[in-house]
Amino acid sequence: MAILSAEGALGSVPIGDFHTEAGGVIDDVTIAYRRWGELQVAADGATNIILVEHALTGDPDAADWWGALIGPGKALDTERWCVICTNVIGGCNGSTGPASPHPDDGKAWGSRFPAVSIRDQVHAEHRFLRELGVGHVHAVIGGSMGGARTLEWTLLYPGSLDAACVIAVSARASAWQIGIQSAQISAITRDPDWHGGDYYDVCEGPVTGLAAARRIAHLTYRGEMELDERFGTTPQQGEDPLGTHRRPDQRFAVDSYLDYQGLKLVQRFDAGAYVALTEALNRHDIGRCRGGLNKALYSSKVPTMVIGVDTDILYPYHQQEHLSRNLGNLLGMHKLVSPVGHDAFLTEDRQMDRLLRRFISLANDGAEPTDGFGHDPEGEWII
Amino acid sequence: MAILSAEGALGSVPIGDFHTEAGGVIDDVTIAYRRWGELQVAADGATNIILVEHALTGDPDAADWWGALIGPGKALDTERWCVICTNVIGGCNGSTGPASPHPDDGKAWGSRFPAVSIRDQVHAEHRFLRELGVGHVHAVIGGSMGGARTLEWTLLYPGSLDAACVIAVSARASAWQIGIQSAQISAITRDPDWHGGDYYDVCEGPVTGLAAARRIAHLTYRGEMELDERFGTTPQQGEDPLGTHRRPDQRFAVDSYLDYQGLKLVQRFDAGAYVALTEALNRHDIGRCRGGLNKALYSSKVPTMVIGVDTDILYPYHQQEHLSRNLGNLLGMHKLVSPVGHDAFLTEDRQMDRLLRRFISLANDGAEPTDGFGHDPEGEWII
Repeated sequence: MAILSAEGALGSVPIGDFHTEAGGVIDDVTIAYRRWGELQVAADGATNIILVEHALTGDPDAADWWGALIGPGKALDTERWCVICTNVIGGCNGSTGPASPHPDDGKAWGSRFPAVSIRDQVHAEHRFLRELGVGHVHAVIGGSMGGARTLEWTLLYPGSLDAACVIAVSARASAWQIGIQSAQISAITRDPDWHGGDYYDVCEGPVTGLAAARRIAHLTYRGEMELDERFGTTPQQGEDPLGTHRRPDQRFAVDSYLDYQGLKLVQRFDAGAYVALTEALNRHDIGRCRGGLNKALYSSKVPTMVIGVDTDILYPYHQQEHLSRNLGNLLGMHKLVSPVGHDAFLTEDRQMDRLLRRFISLANDGAEPTDGFGHDPEGEWII
Repeated sequence: MAILSAEGALGSVPIGDFHTEAGGVIDDVTIAYRRWGELQVAADGATNIILVEHALTGDPDAADWWGALIGPGKALDTERWCVICTNVIGGCNGSTGPASPHPDDGKAWGSRFPAVSIRDQVHAEHRFLRELGVGHVHAVIGGSMGGARTLEWTLLYPGSLDAACVIAVSARASAWQIGIQSAQISAITRDPDWHGGDYYDVCEGPVTGLAAARRIAHLTYRGEMELDERFGTTPQQGEDPLGTHRRPDQRFAVDSYLDYQGLKLVQRFDAGAYVALTEALNRHDIGRCRGGLNKALYSSKVPTMVIGVDTDILYPYHQQEHLSRNLGNLLGMHKLVSPVGHDAFLTEDRQMDRLLRRFISLANDGAEPTDGFGHDPEGEWII
């Protein structure tokens, strides 16, 4: 049986050289992860692993950002399941990404880092599990970019998972998503401190551009009605946005809030990784080399639950309806009702709790699981 | 009777020094305009003027951008009405704005140009009419920023117009709108060629930043389903956006399209004016100093038609529903059904034709007008 890092601790697994879908090579890749709950492996290799896939600027600490959903007795019950969350390849939270040292010279990969696709991310994660000696997971769950990975899991490795839960994502990038995502990339690359992606030895990096990108992104993550309820046209305390001349230090409250969102991200995220992962989202396309979107979706045999948000601007609900109409083995389709928008899968704990419990139940055929792991859940599913 | 510029020709009218709502002063303001159809003035001062209000980057050539709607026999029939379209104060199409010479030194106003509000725009336009000797217009019609001005007309000068048609706008800027608009301002002001707004004597100006702003804006002007139908994930012809490394010259078709939109704007619009007018939109608030939004709307006595677009991201339809629920004298509420989004009021000619004909009819009590202008319309209203 694989030896995993201590519960909640950041571990890392080298997976060797990685060849990307587009033909690039990333040498000596490491995938970082955290896990909660004990791993159980049945005689046939089946495991009790639930793989949780983080979103664009997420990290492997899923028990933090999904704290209401992961833990003993919670929807993803760590007394029963071994929850694992990796950091995506191209990221900056432990896995190899643009900020990582290049094996040749020890300097950051920077502009040398090849473009990765969502499929690359999944292949790398699959390699990570293989290195751990794991050939099967019970379920893969993820929202947004994590949802895109979850969907690719069902098509790249259908024999390796029992069920999937795909949240707030689409079958491929829409033109609008590519447009707004490219605007974010451009905000970063237009920053003089970007240096063509090779800023790591030169300066702090394009922090102004990254903050600007986050500002745009955040407006696609939150519902416009929620923002308006919270901020409206209220001035930021102590500032006057209605003065005789426009002044950037005299703001509406919403601008101050968005500035703060940008500042927070800059403190915890690398601009190069942001560009790399945003590019991966631009390349998201379930249909590529599979005869198109609907043929690809129909070919999916993994029982898959789809969840969308009624007020999602970035991944509008009709995109999840499209998934549910075309997936080959639909386990269920659910709507988060929330003013919050796209981020609702991170904030609507109560609805997510019910939906993930339902997913876990359905993934076990709705019956009490007889999973051979010596655990006897008490059937307290709240639907 | 006022002497107007030749039909379709750009005219301009000096209106003197202008004091802004926020306490600034703009000296020697000129308002530019175009007009189509003959002006008729009745004994009591009533006129046959229909004032058309342009949007953010619009211009006074309404017979161009609303070519299907303005002209002989069209919805805004220039054989009957005198259609006038001014350029907004703060703009760059003939009226005084940041690029105009300051009377003191002949250099561009630049950063000295005071912030103008939507109310300022309307006051300036009212002054323009007064200078022409006109104290009354039959109707004011406008979409987007033009809709905001139309709404302010009904509250600032209710005795000066018979009816208003307010299209694709809200009673005030929403927090989301302020956020996305400020992101556009920031894209411009972060451009090193902005020079604090005083680039006019230094360089070509922040063209890269202006293009980036337009790119963001355009994604709020168009419906995501329309963009997706047109572009999807198609690569731009001759380019490969799926190569081994991300390259800005290897684009998806939608990115090429958005680059083109940015380039087109840069060739015809001044960045300083873009910032000034975007700031005006940030300050749009019907409720300011009027006891709040709904009290202000309820106080409106001018018969007002409201039109919204079902797929509008920037001014979602619920904002027009809000207007219609609260306006004191609602003439009607109509929905443009279109995949195009916000811009539908500029592109859905057939629907707009029917709605503007209906508006004109309702604004005359539905009866054949007895307007005393010696004109006998043939009652061909198509509803």
